[in-house]
Amino acid sequence: MKLRTISRVVQGRNRYSSTQFYIYRVSAQFHSIPKRHSFGIAFDIDGVILRGRTPIGDSPKALRRLYDDSGGGIPESRRASELSQLLGVNIDPIQVLQGHTPFKNLLKRFENELIVATGKGEPAVVMSEYGFKKAISLEEYASHFNNIDPLSPYKTWTTKQPGDEQKNSSESVQSFDVTSERVKAAFVVSDPVDWSRDIQVLCDILRSGGLPGEKCEHQPPMYFAADDLEYQAVFPCERLGMGAFRIALESIFNRIHHKPLEYTSFGKPNPEVFKNAESILKQLLNEDHKDIINNSHHFETLYMIGDNPSVDVKGARQAGHPWFSILTRTGVFKGKENHTDYPADKVVDTVEEAVEYILHKEAI
Amino acid sequence: MKLRTISRVVQGRNRYSSTQFYIYRVSAQFHSIPKRHSFGIAFDIDGVILRGRTPIGDSPKALRRLYDDSGGGIPESRRASELSQLLGVNIDPIQVLQGHTPFKNLLKRFENELIVATGKGEPAVVMSEYGFKKAISLEEYASHFNNIDPLSPYKTWTTKQPGDEQKNSSESVQSFDVTSERVKAAFVVSDPVDWSRDIQVLCDILRSGGLPGEKCEHQPPMYFAADDLEYQAVFPCERLGMGAFRIALESIFNRIHHKPLEYTSFGKPNPEVFKNAESILKQLLNEDHKDIINNSHHFETLYMIGDNPSVDVKGARQAGHPWFSILTRTGVFKGKENHTDYPADKVVDTVEEAVEYILHKEAI
Repeated sequence: MKLRTISRVVQGRNRYSSTQFYIYRVSAQFHSIPKRHSFGIAFDIDGVILRGRTPIGDSPKALRRLYDDSGGGIPESRRASELSQLLGVNIDPIQVLQGHTPFKNLLKRFENELIVATGKGEPAVVMSEYGFKKAISLEEYASHFNNIDPLSPYKTWTTKQPGDEQKNSSESVQSFDVTSERVKAAFVVSDPVDWSRDIQVLCDILRSGGLPGEKCEHQPPMYFAADDLEYQAVFPCERLGMGAFRIALESIFNRIHHKPLEYTSFGKPNPEVFKNAESILKQLLNEDHKDIINNSHHFETLYMIGDNPSVDVKGARQAGHPWFSILTRTGVFKGKENHTDYPADKVVDTVEEAVEYILHKEAI
Repeated sequence: MKLRTISRVVQGRNRYSSTQFYIYRVSAQFHSIPKRHSFGIAFDIDGVILRGRTPIGDSPKALRRLYDDSGGGIPESRRASELSQLLGVNIDPIQVLQGHTPFKNLLKRFENELIVATGKGEPAVVMSEYGFKKAISLEEYASHFNNIDPLSPYKTWTTKQPGDEQKNSSESVQSFDVTSERVKAAFVVSDPVDWSRDIQVLCDILRSGGLPGEKCEHQPPMYFAADDLEYQAVFPCERLGMGAFRIALESIFNRIHHKPLEYTSFGKPNPEVFKNAESILKQLLNEDHKDIINNSHHFETLYMIGDNPSVDVKGARQAGHPWFSILTRTGVFKGKENHTDYPADKVVDTVEEAVEYILHKEAI
């Protein structure tokens, strides 16, 4: 039978291009058919579909089984087009869920406040595009405080990108003076690159109430786009993720400050990610099928295919119905049996097996 | 009366020049007079005598009071001469105690083994000069493993120094293949610059038994030249030291590995530093005064003047007799009374006050 692609949500680390720094490593592609008995599939990308920029096994073939030729047509963003290119399927921007998407919900609170953003790529640009009027990258912020990073003389480097530099500089010069105004919130948008500087400057901001060197006041809110301790990339064993940076910052901050670090981490395994994915899917479903779908439509099953028990499986379990977790052995998880702490509803070797299992279970 | 400078021991962070990366922030300048009633003084530099490269108050004057014009004459190393220049007194290389000096004692064990060294400056060169035949910087080590640092594409930087690069490359190419030989020990010689790379690669080495990607075996020994959480530099509030890096590495490693990190930290507050300083002083005392001093000579008092309670005072207290701790308010410590957790034997505002107190107490 012919399947119509109702909606897809994809998230991934910035493996695909240097401009996709703000995409983080969780992928969710939803597929459903317009009848009461409907389902969706969420794919983790890194370690399931791709390792770095290379497809794992014949994952593209597994994905193609879910698509028909009428899909796509919507103008594609760079990341979506690159994903499409890498996977050989049409993926549109609407599929992409970003780990820091929830940051948008904080716009009302911080729209006109001074906020710092860090992470590889252009973290300040991301926040600016969300509408935050006074977002500055931690790199540029630090450059306004002499000697704040004692290691800087040993760093003959720059993590800035032309666009980032231009945008931030003009913004900061025109609209605010970072050396006198308190930072109201700090955002880790993607994996930080210069850990020693970021941990030092974040500690300065957080323990001073938003202005390094000032007297300690209430800690400004601290937000992370993700909290994955490790993830599977090209290197044979897992690489440290944003969760590792959070642990480093938290461990040090709690040693030098009288009150423990307060923070919020978004992204898997945060159940909000799964709820958000489901609502987006439902919304798109309604748009495509106003005739037969109403707002009260519910998916019978939403499959989460991932390689990381403590992130993908744990998240799906916490999200509860209608989520069904499928754990692959293509990435972080390499066990023979199910995972002990976060057992998945189904364990398979590859994503192809997972898709085969789903299509059979759904009698397609 | 005329005082003869018997010996002096000085340690400091590499504030003085980029070549002094291996000097760490503890200073000990000893002064004694050749009679049974003898004493010595150990100065912490950063936060007591210097803030960055600038003398604090009139600290040079305080030091000059302890010197006579007949001092010096020994060829001075760059660091000693720079210290002399900054402080306006003659300081010879023999005064300099380095945080990683104890690494020498590990030569027999690792002389011909593959070891990695990290820290600003030329960590591998330091270890090579100690006699370690197969020392390689963590920076060069990482360059032999593709994709080991997923953040490297975002680092348009180098922390290498020409000499360092040349030396390491030639060494590694000529004498060993780092991709097949297990690392037998890891040394943090000075403050690491690229924390994200160093923490990632050290975790790879430590949890794999010395060869990233291999099966986990016994953790190779891990050595730190210092363990100071914070220190006072030019910036108004304290900067994170090597102890902060250790906490970051340890916190992450203990989350991803089944056994907690095993490591050894040298330098203050390690009592060995104080014992070592005392023995060097005694040795020099004997050389200068074979006539009246014998090996059984003991100092009645050794004063430790420092600004950091948890490092300088704690260390002196742990070292016990004949150490006497004097805490200044010129750096890390800013309290009005004595420190609660690590109370000093005497608290003063400045190093001038400390010297005045000592000279008066010693009836000089």
